[in-house]
Amino acid sequence: MRGEYCMKICVNPIGFVMRDDQNVRDREAVAKIVLDKSLTGASDGLDDFSHLFIIFWMHKVSDEGRDQVYTHPWGRTDLPKVGVYATRTRNRRNPIGLTLVRLVKKQGNLLLVRGLDAFDGTPVLDIKPYDMWDRSLDASVPGWWHQK
Amino acid sequence: MRGEYCMKICVNPIGFVMRDDQNVRDREAVAKIVLDKSLTGASDGLDDFSHLFIIFWMHKVSDEGRDQVYTHPWGRTDLPKVGVYATRTRNRRNPIGLTLVRLVKKQGNLLLVRGLDAFDGTPVLDIKPYDMWDRSLDASVPGWWHQK
Repeated sequence: MRGEYCMKICVNPIGFVMRDDQNVRDREAVAKIVLDKSLTGASDGLDDFSHLFIIFWMHKVSDEGRDQVYTHPWGRTDLPKVGVYATRTRNRRNPIGLTLVRLVKKQGNLLLVRGLDAFDGTPVLDIKPYDMWDRSLDASVPGWWHQK
Repeated sequence: MRGEYCMKICVNPIGFVMRDDQNVRDREAVAKIVLDKSLTGASDGLDDFSHLFIIFWMHKVSDEGRDQVYTHPWGRTDLPKVGVYATRTRNRRNPIGLTLVRLVKKQGNLLLVRGLDAFDGTPVLDIKPYDMWDRSLDASVPGWWHQK
């Protein structure tokens, strides 16, 4: 149990990421998501959207990583430490990943998506179709964010 | 256990939504998020961002809701049924909510955010600062999506 709140929430993967390459940082790479057979039908109509958010569980994060409070953005010690929630680091209490991808193809329970930065074997927790409410045209970010 | 995969993932809330009003559909309403004291520091620097994604657990969803496969978008029977993953319905295997909000104010472990469609008492699982990778300018959606 982490934190003061005595509450655990249990989730089940709805599918898993499958990919041959390990180049998860390549935004052009295509990965597969294989959805659980019990969810057949639940992705019907998904291919009418061009973009999806994939919510996944970063299963390689250690317990130590989950206890991290501060971090240097992108591990770069030339940038000042900030709280983990001011970054997208995988090291956070609940290592949940959130990535906007382009849906390349859907074939039954198999999705091909472009731009997913998740390793082979990653459990997928949810999929959301992308719409205008997910978009901000006037968002501002800290100065260090531009130094990536 | 749902689905064919024998895997459970346990997450702990990092905080909770607190609000007096129940008008969760009002995009202008301001809600509080109170972060766990064990995470003091983890939100340092968050207020250099204007917008955040809040990832939360829609705790009011029933087991029956979690087993739903098809749905009418926004519950409207004049629109054809689609798979739950082609919508943002709360009724999904893992009732995880994802909402882009504007950060109004941060005061220690308390965040004031505008546009959060989550009820009072909702467990918060993660917070992500919003950046350009979360944005698509050429996203397309199905025709029925425009009938909201």
